[in-house]
Amino acid sequence: MSLTPPQGFLFAAAAAGIKPSGKPDLALALVPGGAAAAAMFTRNQIVAAPIILGREHLRRSAGRVHALIVNAGNANCATGKQGLQAAKRVCSELAFGVKLKPEHVFPSSTGIIGVPFPAEKITNALPGLLASADSSAGSLEAFANAILTTDTHAKTSCQSITRAGRSAGLVGVAKGAGMIHPNMATMLVYLFTDLAASPRDLKPTLKRAVDDSFHNISIDGDTSTNDTVLLLASGKSGLEMKSVRAEFQAALSKVCRSLAAQIVADGEGVKHVVRLRIEQSRSSEDARRIARAIANSSLVKTSWAGADPNWGRVLAAIGYSGVAVHPERINIYLGDQQVCRNGTACKFDAGQAHHYMSEPAYEIRIALGAGSHTLEFLSCDLTEEYVHINAEYST
Amino acid sequence: MSLTPPQGFLFAAAAAGIKPSGKPDLALALVPGGAAAAAMFTRNQIVAAPIILGREHLRRSAGRVHALIVNAGNANCATGKQGLQAAKRVCSELAFGVKLKPEHVFPSSTGIIGVPFPAEKITNALPGLLASADSSAGSLEAFANAILTTDTHAKTSCQSITRAGRSAGLVGVAKGAGMIHPNMATMLVYLFTDLAASPRDLKPTLKRAVDDSFHNISIDGDTSTNDTVLLLASGKSGLEMKSVRAEFQAALSKVCRSLAAQIVADGEGVKHVVRLRIEQSRSSEDARRIARAIANSSLVKTSWAGADPNWGRVLAAIGYSGVAVHPERINIYLGDQQVCRNGTACKFDAGQAHHYMSEPAYEIRIALGAGSHTLEFLSCDLTEEYVHINAEYST
Repeated sequence: MSLTPPQGFLFAAAAAGIKPSGKPDLALALVPGGAAAAAMFTRNQIVAAPIILGREHLRRSAGRVHALIVNAGNANCATGKQGLQAAKRVCSELAFGVKLKPEHVFPSSTGIIGVPFPAEKITNALPGLLASADSSAGSLEAFANAILTTDTHAKTSCQSITRAGRSAGLVGVAKGAGMIHPNMATMLVYLFTDLAASPRDLKPTLKRAVDDSFHNISIDGDTSTNDTVLLLASGKSGLEMKSVRAEFQAALSKVCRSLAAQIVADGEGVKHVVRLRIEQSRSSEDARRIARAIANSSLVKTSWAGADPNWGRVLAAIGYSGVAVHPERINIYLGDQQVCRNGTACKFDAGQAHHYMSEPAYEIRIALGAGSHTLEFLSCDLTEEYVHINAEYST
Repeated sequence: MSLTPPQGFLFAAAAAGIKPSGKPDLALALVPGGAAAAAMFTRNQIVAAPIILGREHLRRSAGRVHALIVNAGNANCATGKQGLQAAKRVCSELAFGVKLKPEHVFPSSTGIIGVPFPAEKITNALPGLLASADSSAGSLEAFANAILTTDTHAKTSCQSITRAGRSAGLVGVAKGAGMIHPNMATMLVYLFTDLAASPRDLKPTLKRAVDDSFHNISIDGDTSTNDTVLLLASGKSGLEMKSVRAEFQAALSKVCRSLAAQIVADGEGVKHVVRLRIEQSRSSEDARRIARAIANSSLVKTSWAGADPNWGRVLAAIGYSGVAVHPERINIYLGDQQVCRNGTACKFDAGQAHHYMSEPAYEIRIALGAGSHTLEFLSCDLTEEYVHINAEYST
């Protein structure tokens, strides 16, 4: 599927000089007719200025967004009142340029924490950015590239929904999270559709898609101060949400799951993507807590780096997850091979298991014997390269 | 202070052939007159056979222990009914040898998970072990060495309490935890004293000492299936607990804190021990949760490995700790230098900070501006060496 921008959106990107590398670091999405918006933000209590401002703008505009401005290279976090003023200035200048109110501009930032925000570099770049915005696939790709920090490639995914001869598009664009030069580790996700929907309709749909995708991944367990997922619906396809609700939910979840998988696979130093399939759980929440305990265990993650079928570490992590379990009912499988039966060691071919875990992506299946819920959770290994990169970030 | 065994205890160690290296792996402590006992165990729901049996024996004996048998090299965990039978057999044979009931024997194991427990190797070694037990400092040192797995050296600490011409001794012996060839990462701590006390008296004293020490350390955040802290009081000094309660509490806490610090410093691949001093917290529990979030963050720990004054990662970890904080009141200090003021970046000498963080041990001080509680918590860095060692453990 080609990366065709949905109708009603214009994109542009530029190098504003925020990244020391001189690479593109400023991205703009314009919605001339305006879009209905829904957003989800980091749960971290320490939040960056654009998160504070983005929340406020959505409230004041009652969920209408006409412009999205994203910079990479500076998170505008722990920058105090000056940081908030700087973010406001960027929004005001952009709003002035497109003859709108500031609350119709949605800001995002990603990059280093605690460095004064270079608002002027951004405002200087705005006229050129506005002049170059168009609806081409190339501009959308430039947008997807400009929001990256240490990701090795752009992350996009698209779907379309057709009903009675009418077709709506959905494109998702993301940058990686929770690893990788980690002060630049914010997860930013933008979802553009030309479906017609109200902000109230979009909210639960987005929440469900995020629960199905970004909430089921973990790279190193850290939560960014800037994480943002934004869904914009321009309505230009003429197709109404209410006539394709289930199809749109499915398409949105699919796009989010694809972006989530791309984010994990591009984690810093990642050599193995591991899908944890938690079965027979009492609830999805229990399954997620268990998956998180496993996915955040340094002991488990380093054993994955060595393709070591050390299931005892997985069992121990289940035991301290905080979820009440019946150890004697737990079964663990590496692909087709069972390695733990009823909480106890069972014979298995360690060579075959090592071979299986040497693949770039594989599955560990855990049956809890506690209920009927299943959850798939994506994680990755913790490698020497991860430590090397993250030990040498800011100095 | 020399490592003089308290009165009433005999020690012995042997190489039973459990460790492939052939090093000593079996340790015995005998209390011919019996000891009052109190114990604390891992909170992991997946527990090894000796934990199940140890709890049961303490219950049946009403807190009386006459013999402690510890093996290294096999955790007897995830070994099912056979594992429990094997542990029972070791206790029964030892009880028979010293003409006691099995419930007067306290078992401990540390080592790999999920490998059948070699009870016969242990029972074969028991006669020799019993014959060689004595009250010499050399035997106590041999005990301290035989319980080690991948620790690089034995960990001991001692204190004495004197009152009205009478003197009681206290010796603590430990092996490392939560790192280091992690299936062998169990923390085992044995505290021997010749004070006279009842099991009921010992329990709260032990709990408080553990809260002050082992609960305030973290190496990689993983919790073992075998963690055990056991306090034995022979009463042979003639000094009564009730006459020196406060002094004994202080001595016990001091010994536990010393052992805890030794455990962190000997963590696998550890290059820096970091003392987190959390000040102005609403409660000790809040302070501990915040310290744990920081100490378990891969991003923070890798920055410590690089001596990188990346305080933004610390601030972000505080933000997702689950404790309600006022970001605008948070101050962070690296030694004498303030690096974050009121939640916002402040100017500091990065070179000096890097130099400070290059020391093998240093302090990060965090003032929350939320209350009056202070907590000191010991943690360490996450190095490439840790990953290297743990990626290559069982295969």
